[in-house]
Amino acid sequence: MVTVTFNVNGSAVTIHANKGDNLLSIAQRANVAIDAPCSGNGACGKCRVKLLEGELDSPQTRHISDEEYVMGWRLACVSRVVSDVVVGVPDIASAYRSRMRVADISSAKELEIFNHTRAQIEEAGIAFGNNLSSVTVAMEAPTTDDTMPDNERLAWALEAATGAEKVTLCFHALKKLAWVLRESDFNVRCVIETEGSAVNVLDILPASDATPVAGLVVDLGTTSVAALLVNLEDGSILAKASTGNGQIRYGADVINRIIESGREGGSQRLQQAVIDESIRPLVEEMCAAAKIGMKNVYRMCLAGNTTMNHLLLGLFAEPVRMEPYIPSFFHCDDIRTSSLRLGLHPEAKLILAPNIGSYVGGDITAGAFASMLWNKEELSLFIDLGTNGELVFGNNEFLMSCACSAGPAFEGGDISCGMRATDGAIDTLVIDPETWEPTYTTIGNTKHPVGICGSGIIDSIAELFRCGIINGKGKFNREHKRVRFDENGMGSYIIAFKEVTGAVRDVSINEVDIDNFIRAKGAIFSATMTMLSSMGMDPSVLEHVYVAGGIGSGINMKNAVTIGMLPDIDLDHFSYIGNSSLSGAYAMLTSTQAREKVDELATTMTYLELSTEPGYMDSFVAACFLPHTDSNLFPSVQV
Amino acid sequence: MVTVTFNVNGSAVTIHANKGDNLLSIAQRANVAIDAPCSGNGACGKCRVKLLEGELDSPQTRHISDEEYVMGWRLACVSRVVSDVVVGVPDIASAYRSRMRVADISSAKELEIFNHTRAQIEEAGIAFGNNLSSVTVAMEAPTTDDTMPDNERLAWALEAATGAEKVTLCFHALKKLAWVLRESDFNVRCVIETEGSAVNVLDILPASDATPVAGLVVDLGTTSVAALLVNLEDGSILAKASTGNGQIRYGADVINRIIESGREGGSQRLQQAVIDESIRPLVEEMCAAAKIGMKNVYRMCLAGNTTMNHLLLGLFAEPVRMEPYIPSFFHCDDIRTSSLRLGLHPEAKLILAPNIGSYVGGDITAGAFASMLWNKEELSLFIDLGTNGELVFGNNEFLMSCACSAGPAFEGGDISCGMRATDGAIDTLVIDPETWEPTYTTIGNTKHPVGICGSGIIDSIAELFRCGIINGKGKFNREHKRVRFDENGMGSYIIAFKEVTGAVRDVSINEVDIDNFIRAKGAIFSATMTMLSSMGMDPSVLEHVYVAGGIGSGINMKNAVTIGMLPDIDLDHFSYIGNSSLSGAYAMLTSTQAREKVDELATTMTYLELSTEPGYMDSFVAACFLPHTDSNLFPSVQV
Repeated sequence: MVTVTFNVNGSAVTIHANKGDNLLSIAQRANVAIDAPCSGNGACGKCRVKLLEGELDSPQTRHISDEEYVMGWRLACVSRVVSDVVVGVPDIASAYRSRMRVADISSAKELEIFNHTRAQIEEAGIAFGNNLSSVTVAMEAPTTDDTMPDNERLAWALEAATGAEKVTLCFHALKKLAWVLRESDFNVRCVIETEGSAVNVLDILPASDATPVAGLVVDLGTTSVAALLVNLEDGSILAKASTGNGQIRYGADVINRIIESGREGGSQRLQQAVIDESIRPLVEEMCAAAKIGMKNVYRMCLAGNTTMNHLLLGLFAEPVRMEPYIPSFFHCDDIRTSSLRLGLHPEAKLILAPNIGSYVGGDITAGAFASMLWNKEELSLFIDLGTNGELVFGNNEFLMSCACSAGPAFEGGDISCGMRATDGAIDTLVIDPETWEPTYTTIGNTKHPVGICGSGIIDSIAELFRCGIINGKGKFNREHKRVRFDENGMGSYIIAFKEVTGAVRDVSINEVDIDNFIRAKGAIFSATMTMLSSMGMDPSVLEHVYVAGGIGSGINMKNAVTIGMLPDIDLDHFSYIGNSSLSGAYAMLTSTQAREKVDELATTMTYLELSTEPGYMDSFVAACFLPHTDSNLFPSVQV
Repeated sequence: MVTVTFNVNGSAVTIHANKGDNLLSIAQRANVAIDAPCSGNGACGKCRVKLLEGELDSPQTRHISDEEYVMGWRLACVSRVVSDVVVGVPDIASAYRSRMRVADISSAKELEIFNHTRAQIEEAGIAFGNNLSSVTVAMEAPTTDDTMPDNERLAWALEAATGAEKVTLCFHALKKLAWVLRESDFNVRCVIETEGSAVNVLDILPASDATPVAGLVVDLGTTSVAALLVNLEDGSILAKASTGNGQIRYGADVINRIIESGREGGSQRLQQAVIDESIRPLVEEMCAAAKIGMKNVYRMCLAGNTTMNHLLLGLFAEPVRMEPYIPSFFHCDDIRTSSLRLGLHPEAKLILAPNIGSYVGGDITAGAFASMLWNKEELSLFIDLGTNGELVFGNNEFLMSCACSAGPAFEGGDISCGMRATDGAIDTLVIDPETWEPTYTTIGNTKHPVGICGSGIIDSIAELFRCGIINGKGKFNREHKRVRFDENGMGSYIIAFKEVTGAVRDVSINEVDIDNFIRAKGAIFSATMTMLSSMGMDPSVLEHVYVAGGIGSGINMKNAVTIGMLPDIDLDHFSYIGNSSLSGAYAMLTSTQAREKVDELATTMTYLELSTEPGYMDSFVAACFLPHTDSNLFPSVQV
């Protein structure tokens, strides 16, 4: 037995372990958050820790320089403890949540996109309005001649006020009933749920209590979680927040998470990680900001991919990843949030955006709804750039979907200096073709960049390619002040020198990063082409391309075409629609018609399994080039 | 601050307290069960503890002899701590549960009564049958050509097997679904709830798992709790058990409990006391005996008085005891047992037998149903002898009810040697008119008696009166080997001498006991007379009198007439029907028709408020005599 101490953000967490145990596993057991997107195979280099005392059996990898190795830097995932150790987990725990932030409409631009989506939904005839509301009623107090029990008294008053034929009280309301009636002199405000001519009382408040009838919207991503607290009676946004998905320490992608969930106690660990570390803190934060109690949240709508839905609910998810890839459900009603122990109103229902396959989930049905491609005669494409890339193609007559594994590159995973789209991330970049000097912007306009987010990586690769600094294979052509080659001959372009930023490392992009990204963009492009050609079509049919995802605050579409990620069509056809999963879930929560529409879309949407589709693999290989091995596909790109 | 240590059944419970704190309150805070039926006013003498170390400020009361006081015996309710103390709580904690046992159909006689009731219900055309059942289905396993999600696959199979048009899965079933399907090779047994053409799957088990579809029946009395575990598919009894109501330490009657519930945290304390100490242990005991999991209990039906229902649910109960006496509900649907944290199936519904007034509750509606008086043309009377006495009078055309406060005398409270009807209790007694020597039986045929239960007290008083040992006022006429007078002139009759039994005290009955019991029987008789005369009738109209309650394993009806508790009519008209609340609740759980009938009875039954009924108090005073001040009412009793 040895003792392992993690120094995290000024506090120490100590746990016993066996000699030879893997340090990342120990950290996971100790509930110490170490980012490990590649799930511990030494590939991504993100799980850096600093050995402060004791000894680790830990090889030096390409992610750790000689200098850094001497300073004590190690990758947790390839380290085994051989003595009592103290390791520092720098900057992770404290920065964890903010580092994972995504599009949560907290910026003016995101809000503009969100409001545009809302307006479009209303223009399409999908009216705001759901079956939760509040109604104020006054009653006569009981007397010895009028001894009707409290619940019948309230039911009579509500029948008169609403015209309902049947009024029931949920237990939460019954429990408060006698007290609130007398405290309020029998003048109360009821939160009610209407089904036809029946009314169910969810809550009872004194008439003077104007607490909003609140609802919760959650976009549950593999990497990030975004949420809104909304007023269900008028649709206004009461609060917004986002954070990382606490499951990330069990793996960056859905496959690794499912594998972990299949281990003993795993599904419980994964469920707790996302609820206790992500969703509940978001709800607490938003309720505190909006000054309402968690019990005043009466309904929740969540959009997530199929695996996230299963892991959230604590279901046995192995069949989702094993042939023939069978989820427990596509659509399920009758779940209450109390099953998740979120602390919301005990009868609050959980609406899940419906899945349509093991790899096309509720985030896509909600997102496709928000993209409005179902409401147009013209053929459109919806692309959600996430850890998985999902596409929906169609119009008001048909919809087809497919999914490809893009990997975490769009969100900064698998990229040496990659990071999520949050403060300090380089989100746009231009290179001077003469001097090769970069000009960039960072999110939050920080003085120095910390890393590069998805949109910045697209720009970097496009600019490197445009300036001839890299070739079509993503390899650097020659040395330069900003282009270096290491002992293995791997080239990299330095965007910001550590001497300038004062950081431990340069912010740079290297050939491995570019290669990873090229594979991600190749997956998206080949998915697009394969889906189109399955219909006997090509990109020229696309009148609209809606790009969604947490890649950044926007995408330079021209650059995305330049690197061959998006098809080479008129740039006017592209729109960035932000976090469409979140806006779709918002619509489902606040509008019964929207919810019915999403359910309808899910029923009619077909699914194309790319892995068994002839030509997909060839198409993918051909797309792993800048912009593409077939330059005829990218006439606008000058090579 | 002082330290108070309770030695309970071999273990010690220590708690800090302030000097001057009441010992009973300290015990309640420490969760040490001390029986205090009079709720701590020194009246009943039941809260005896033994001072082992330290000092108590504690007066000697009439319940403690000089000898006992010297030995350290004190009443907890009148004791204040003045130093660190160690007190023994002898025999209470260990004997607590068994001492509180009531009619739970564990004896052959009780089972016979129960089965007779069942047969009568069926003869009346109330069929067995409820909407819970299990159905076994086999499915084809999914393939790459058949990728329907698990819940839809199951729904299809169930639609085919049951003819249902809509199948939903509750979350508990969904959570197990993927696992159980694969573990069972897609051959499963589903526990389903049918509503019209809709089926809700509550549980899914491998087809080979024959665990019964179990339901829970509870009779929640003020003093005692009885329960049955039943098979909902065939009505068979899987297990039975009874125990005391853990709330008893907060007061013997409903009024004291409500007062306690109104104190800070009180309603939670009372809810926890009955759930954690009474109902859950009963369920655990029965599930263990029947070898099934608590999650296999899919529904619960509980019959209790209005106050017990409110305190069970943790409702604010003050309005029940305060004019104009308004309960939160008479009837309520849509409560799940999960609100009670009993650990049953998470979707298990709680059916409550409906209340019809603040003082006529579900125990009476269920009991009146079981008495079958609603099914006869002849006029009948149903009497439930409990801490409250409730009466229902009527036939197949009308039903009226009333309630009187009998106090705890029928269950042995307020009686110096009183005890509940359990092992060691004298339950029948005859006195030789020549020698005044008693002959008695004890429950469980124990070698020596421990005390007297209700039926034994009736016999004792009737025999003392018949033999002329006491007069009509319940006073002893002269001294005798078995009749003693204390220094205050209070007479008592010794049933069993401590020299014979080896106990600390004689088993005896004194004038205070007799007086208490006369008031209890007087309340019942005057309630009977007042209700009859409100209809312009007298006892001669009664064709049947059904006596229910936990008074003993039976009642000597002749003796009950002799003391003037029951009206002087043909003895053939009386029947003892055992725990009618329990049998009524059993019927409601297992038969939808029975449940509908009870709801109907509750709607039609009228309530007579005795306290405002002219003549009731006079009638009560006149009845506080043996057999009655008007001997014409008891022609068969020779005075």
